[in-house]
Amino acid sequence: MNPKVIIIGAGFGGLEAATKLAKEPVDILLIDKNNFHTFTPLIYQVATCALDPSEVAYPVRGIFRRNRNVSFLLGTVTAIDTDSQTITVEHSDGQRSEHYDALIVAGGSVYNFFGMEDVARHSYVLDELSDAVRLRNHILRLFEKAVWEEDSAERAALTTMVVVGGGPTGIETAGAIYELYNHVLSHEFSQRKLRARVVLVEMQDHLLAPYPHSLQHAALTQLRSLGVEVILGNGLDGVSADSVTLSDGTEIPTHTLIWSAGVKASPLAEMLGVELARAGRVPIDAQTKVLGLENVYAVGDMTYLEDPEGNPYPMLIPVAQQQAEVAAHNIMAAINGTATKQFRYKDRGIMATIGRKRAVAWLYNRVTLKGRLAWLAWLGLHLVTLLGFRNRLNVLVNWTWNYFTYDRSARLLLEQQQRIAKQ
Amino acid sequence: MNPKVIIIGAGFGGLEAATKLAKEPVDILLIDKNNFHTFTPLIYQVATCALDPSEVAYPVRGIFRRNRNVSFLLGTVTAIDTDSQTITVEHSDGQRSEHYDALIVAGGSVYNFFGMEDVARHSYVLDELSDAVRLRNHILRLFEKAVWEEDSAERAALTTMVVVGGGPTGIETAGAIYELYNHVLSHEFSQRKLRARVVLVEMQDHLLAPYPHSLQHAALTQLRSLGVEVILGNGLDGVSADSVTLSDGTEIPTHTLIWSAGVKASPLAEMLGVELARAGRVPIDAQTKVLGLENVYAVGDMTYLEDPEGNPYPMLIPVAQQQAEVAAHNIMAAINGTATKQFRYKDRGIMATIGRKRAVAWLYNRVTLKGRLAWLAWLGLHLVTLLGFRNRLNVLVNWTWNYFTYDRSARLLLEQQQRIAKQ
Repeated sequence: MNPKVIIIGAGFGGLEAATKLAKEPVDILLIDKNNFHTFTPLIYQVATCALDPSEVAYPVRGIFRRNRNVSFLLGTVTAIDTDSQTITVEHSDGQRSEHYDALIVAGGSVYNFFGMEDVARHSYVLDELSDAVRLRNHILRLFEKAVWEEDSAERAALTTMVVVGGGPTGIETAGAIYELYNHVLSHEFSQRKLRARVVLVEMQDHLLAPYPHSLQHAALTQLRSLGVEVILGNGLDGVSADSVTLSDGTEIPTHTLIWSAGVKASPLAEMLGVELARAGRVPIDAQTKVLGLENVYAVGDMTYLEDPEGNPYPMLIPVAQQQAEVAAHNIMAAINGTATKQFRYKDRGIMATIGRKRAVAWLYNRVTLKGRLAWLAWLGLHLVTLLGFRNRLNVLVNWTWNYFTYDRSARLLLEQQQRIAKQ
Repeated sequence: MNPKVIIIGAGFGGLEAATKLAKEPVDILLIDKNNFHTFTPLIYQVATCALDPSEVAYPVRGIFRRNRNVSFLLGTVTAIDTDSQTITVEHSDGQRSEHYDALIVAGGSVYNFFGMEDVARHSYVLDELSDAVRLRNHILRLFEKAVWEEDSAERAALTTMVVVGGGPTGIETAGAIYELYNHVLSHEFSQRKLRARVVLVEMQDHLLAPYPHSLQHAALTQLRSLGVEVILGNGLDGVSADSVTLSDGTEIPTHTLIWSAGVKASPLAEMLGVELARAGRVPIDAQTKVLGLENVYAVGDMTYLEDPEGNPYPMLIPVAQQQAEVAAHNIMAAINGTATKQFRYKDRGIMATIGRKRAVAWLYNRVTLKGRLAWLAWLGLHLVTLLGFRNRLNVLVNWTWNYFTYDRSARLLLEQQQRIAKQ
């Protein structure tokens, strides 16, 4: 009987750990509430009709179809008992208990509304693939409504989108929505010309906090040259179904608030029964073991670990992947009695795209790229890291098509509605 | 002011009429409850994870982006007043009334449960794109459940699918589900080998009623050689959440009944206030005008018209398209006072695919094709007639991939669920 490793979460961290451990003499149980891994950096492209859901997601069972020591359970973990080394999973058929010899918790992050009920109720987020489909349907529906709307003030509200948060998701989403509306959809409403207004609101007085000043400035310039209104140094005061109010009292009539101004650790963190760091993150040591627990490892966005200078490692995919590799190594080291590894982040850089030929990149903490070159680097990196050859091919076809035709094919208003009579 | 033509329905008939009329000096209002045209012959491939929803659907606005005389309204027609020449449309913002100078009703068909409440409640159909996504989610969920199910009888029920109806949709769906389960998914459940049972039930003693005997027999042989159980000369007696009972008393434990045993005209037919033919179809004359009404044309599945031998024209896409062409011509003839056209069906043939290298085709009422050749003809025809170059390219990539790898990438369990905490 091989030792049993349970991995919670099939995001970038969980997948990396499962891939590494699949080659070892252990039995792996991978648990996720979706049957697919999501390529989260491209979720906003689904929301803006540039890509199809299946192009940014890959079935977990397909990834491990040749690994007979990997089992998959579709379900949600509801309890972790670190004394008996047992977890409880809620799945479609009820509850299951599963015992582990080693546990890797890789739950990622969830959106943080900082207790603002109105924001939680009236905003859209881009956390999961289903969020992206929901936002896509909402945006397409508003546009269909706006074209038949006689009242010009209401029409303006229908075509105004407010994005809160000047991080990568915020600026990528704002740029992509602007392009979708004003370069694609606006050509297709012959009765009436519609013009979209996209407003990006950031509390700090610069975008992209972790980037050097020159790139923060480049991102701002590129966004504005595209047509996005950027409001810096202003936060969100409140939101209702038809307007957003900023801290300085500005009121923006809109039906669309996209919230990308804060994340916190997955609620899985609380199930571990340890004291959590800020944003609900689980403190781990450099071996990626959860402080104070035995045989429990945690990786990625939901963990808290400081670098040698005392700064917490950022919530980034490469951090999660590299931590997962360390966790997998150290689990085998514990089983075999061999030497453990310490996590040391190899930082290759960060990049964000703003739209057609617009992007910024900050590589190896040395090189800055902006504009067309950064955009090409972004395209290349995302194509290469996308899971699965077919997905890459289809994404390449779609991006090339979008680029040359200013068309977007994925714009279906497809909802799980009740069966109703067909027209 | 140009004459105004309203077209209800963006299916094959409505689209053909709109395309023809878009070149004329008329204003066209096209109405559909979806913002996309659906390539219905491939819906079952979405249900069986071979294609993505956006590959068999195309945004209506995209099709007519260069036709400034075509407007689109997303909504459901709730009333047609042929005296005042006005229709009422329910849309996201309330109701609209629209006046027409000429009306084309192209509502297609809907599933007919013949008043069987239990079938309506417990069955899946493949009528709309959203039906296909619903069935796909259901099938994937059952498989995820079956692999963890300890009880072998329940496991068998979870992996048994019953398809009722031996027409093209029934045999294509049965074949595709069998392949999905036993050639793709069964390799990916390492804990336990799962084997799917697919049962096709047909009331008559042959499949594919309109085909010649040799092809009916070929379809039967090919389905059985694939592994599908075919039960002929037996109907459906009843259905519950966990079993299907046939007319002869046979009970099949299953959670999946796919109903493809009957259609009727769209409920739009009843709004016309004329006497309807069997299956609720609207009687039209050879000019495609609705009998007894002025300036109202109807085309496609929802219409009733007999050929010179006294047989009603079948509910087929080419019939709808050719009738739509006649309707468009005759509307312009009425406006311009020129000669009208009579509908005369140019029958090029029918074909149905059963699975990899398995198909039947009946061309020009003369040529019979079966097996690999029919399958290649089917592939070619569907690729060529699929709307939009990019869709074709993506479908080609996916089909080629599926063919060589026995993989299916579109198998995402993606539902419009409430936001819940991410693992």
